[in-house]
Amino acid sequence: MVKLLGIALLLPLVISFSPSTIFNKGLTRSAVSTTNYSPVTSPSIRRGATELNAKNKKVVVLGGDGFCGWPTSLYLSDQGHDIIIVDNLSRRNIDNELGCDSLTPIASPAERVRAWEEVSGKKIKFVNLDVAKDYAELVELFKTEKPDTVVHFAEQRAAPYSMKSSKGKRYTIDNNVPGTNNLCCAIVDAERDIHVVHLGTMGVYGYGTSGGEIPEGYIDVTLPGGRESNILHPAYPGSVYHATKCLDAIMFQFYQKNDQLRITDLHQGIVWGTNTPQTIRDERLINRFDYDGDYGTVLNRFLMQGAMGVPLTVYGTGGQTRAFIHVTDTARCIEIAINNPPKKGDRVEIFNQVAETRRVRDIAGMVASRTGVEMKMVPNPRQEAAENELDVSNKKFCNLGLEPLTLDEGLFDEVTEVVQKYKHRCDPRMILPATYWNKARAEECEKKMPSVGEMTKDMK
Amino acid sequence: MVKLLGIALLLPLVISFSPSTIFNKGLTRSAVSTTNYSPVTSPSIRRGATELNAKNKKVVVLGGDGFCGWPTSLYLSDQGHDIIIVDNLSRRNIDNELGCDSLTPIASPAERVRAWEEVSGKKIKFVNLDVAKDYAELVELFKTEKPDTVVHFAEQRAAPYSMKSSKGKRYTIDNNVPGTNNLCCAIVDAERDIHVVHLGTMGVYGYGTSGGEIPEGYIDVTLPGGRESNILHPAYPGSVYHATKCLDAIMFQFYQKNDQLRITDLHQGIVWGTNTPQTIRDERLINRFDYDGDYGTVLNRFLMQGAMGVPLTVYGTGGQTRAFIHVTDTARCIEIAINNPPKKGDRVEIFNQVAETRRVRDIAGMVASRTGVEMKMVPNPRQEAAENELDVSNKKFCNLGLEPLTLDEGLFDEVTEVVQKYKHRCDPRMILPATYWNKARAEECEKKMPSVGEMTKDMK
Repeated sequence: MVKLLGIALLLPLVISFSPSTIFNKGLTRSAVSTTNYSPVTSPSIRRGATELNAKNKKVVVLGGDGFCGWPTSLYLSDQGHDIIIVDNLSRRNIDNELGCDSLTPIASPAERVRAWEEVSGKKIKFVNLDVAKDYAELVELFKTEKPDTVVHFAEQRAAPYSMKSSKGKRYTIDNNVPGTNNLCCAIVDAERDIHVVHLGTMGVYGYGTSGGEIPEGYIDVTLPGGRESNILHPAYPGSVYHATKCLDAIMFQFYQKNDQLRITDLHQGIVWGTNTPQTIRDERLINRFDYDGDYGTVLNRFLMQGAMGVPLTVYGTGGQTRAFIHVTDTARCIEIAINNPPKKGDRVEIFNQVAETRRVRDIAGMVASRTGVEMKMVPNPRQEAAENELDVSNKKFCNLGLEPLTLDEGLFDEVTEVVQKYKHRCDPRMILPATYWNKARAEECEKKMPSVGEMTKDMK
Repeated sequence: MVKLLGIALLLPLVISFSPSTIFNKGLTRSAVSTTNYSPVTSPSIRRGATELNAKNKKVVVLGGDGFCGWPTSLYLSDQGHDIIIVDNLSRRNIDNELGCDSLTPIASPAERVRAWEEVSGKKIKFVNLDVAKDYAELVELFKTEKPDTVVHFAEQRAAPYSMKSSKGKRYTIDNNVPGTNNLCCAIVDAERDIHVVHLGTMGVYGYGTSGGEIPEGYIDVTLPGGRESNILHPAYPGSVYHATKCLDAIMFQFYQKNDQLRITDLHQGIVWGTNTPQTIRDERLINRFDYDGDYGTVLNRFLMQGAMGVPLTVYGTGGQTRAFIHVTDTARCIEIAINNPPKKGDRVEIFNQVAETRRVRDIAGMVASRTGVEMKMVPNPRQEAAENELDVSNKKFCNLGLEPLTLDEGLFDEVTEVVQKYKHRCDPRMILPATYWNKARAEECEKKMPSVGEMTKDMK
């Protein structure tokens, strides 16, 4: 259980290693043996996996070029799994559309997999394919490659982009929902017993104060007449992006029931951090880092702003409580899910993929105190509760051996070093929010939002 | 409350008029004054509507060329509303794809609206537009026409077609979900306070035995810790088609919350009947009638088979209990919904649009006893509970003055007459189920399904 009451953190989670044991300081092209990263391959991570399940698998990673997909692909490859990345590069194309770019200079997919083979000796295949459109190719891929598992990251993943305009709303729906449906259909058509591991979001539960612990996917309810039931947690998405993950959950429920698909849905918190023990092995393997108002996740934005000497842009009161997870743990959780598939006929397995919950103004405070920059409360571009409690169960992953990284200040160094190294690539105009949830939010922000000049006057 | 316990019907609903008062016998081209149909315009239908709400409105009917959309458009026009039909004719195109056709010879959209103007003096505009794709045109339509209400029928509506193959599954998702999203986006973009009236389905609730009355959209639950809540009824769709209506419900919840859209979602039972007091006014106005295994709804299929002297194809044990509504009441319910929109800021209004529930083998028995044909239990092509109870609330429409038509045997005559008149257009090969929910169902049906020859040997 991860629980935040007021600002008191009741965290039974173990902070298992200091940052210096995870990452070499700085980014170098020198290969670093994974044996330096004992926690990543420690028996504790594997203790929940049976011998049978822990065998190396053939894994297709849909969306394997993205912020979570790329480090996950490398981690799985490093663990001995046979990886095929499928990606249509839509995230890179959206950068073009928005006129922004990853702060870190990411290599092309071809160069990435070449570099990985050089440093690890392991091959990753890359296939450029649009999961939402290239259906016949997807079926053919499953028939030819016969993967054990498909990890499904191939969805537009930014809530702000999904609310930017009708174009963003429509792309998010038109890509995410048909993509998930195509995946399920293709598994049925290919007649392969493929385990699906899908990245959901904590946002499916909504960010109101629930008044109780959010369980993992299913909740016990008493219906009228005293009937007891255990149902999919009610969906209460706060953006079109979050809505698509709720829609995914219903499609998964259906395809499990109708076709006995084996599915694990991972409701992930907000991801922070940049690199992992694999991506730092060569600069050509570097992970993308988004700092803009649309794609930058909140903590990474603060770390970026702190390193740049720009005030931290806290939306509203900063009273929003959110769940967090480090990108390294994303990859680990995916492997645990891969190694522990539900049995044929089991209902959809749902995990909460979170390390801890924090209030936004508290994490801003942590970054502010480390960097000396001020917090700047700006009008909230989002339609959301100003303040909420969030109490989330993450027992399942912990029972399977995960000891998640928490917001130990030391880990901030990794992001800070990345930002320092690449800050010449930063476009300060991208720091302020660029998307408003509705007309009322847009009007308030237009009146009260500080200007870029005001925000960047002390920029280092 | 409509309740079926075992086979005892506890129906508090009033059978308000005999069929002879609703329809002229037979189909004629002679215009028949609507004043013959007193129930259609009776004060009882209107008593729930305030003077303010009952004014004539400008209504865009998306999917207004279809089985429900067309008679609804005519009914609304007849009541004095200003109607614009939007349809991309996808239902007619699917006929081409499946190699089947409406039993009744439906006129082209242009001829339909011309004929309606001739007999009623009222204009209906027809716009050929794909709601799922032609987004800019949809926004422009809303800006130009400034409708008060949009009725949303523009979804692929057959569960079997949605399960026919990956093509059917994908089309149903790719059309229905983006279509609904486009509608919501377009209302926001057009900056019009348009009330959405959407056709959902009883299937969103699932067809298991719930153990209690199914409420209208929202259900009271007690959560762990004794927290009381009223949530969207858990979704448990039995086909990809039904799933899309569950996805719609989540999108509606979101757009209501984020943009204060005013939305009414109507969870409709299985529609039966063919014509309405409006469609019988001229043969060029005739409604479509589907009898095939994919698009024919269960009772209409039985009535067709009975009239043709073909055994009634009961799937499985026929123990499935379903909700029913006559096509005339579909149109009436839509108008009640139009006249009673939720207020700005109200949560999505949800009605159960049903007249009564019956067990499939009981309605087959009714048709068999009337027509003298036998019931033929055939293997169930669907993955569904063999037997279920269904107890559904329909208080809201009844409180607003609806006195729904029930399965009074007399109304069967209308369908029987239609079938007799057009049976030369029937392709008997279309009578048997053509779609199987999954591989197991397909294999069982392949072994045990009777042949077309066997089924049609006594065909009249």
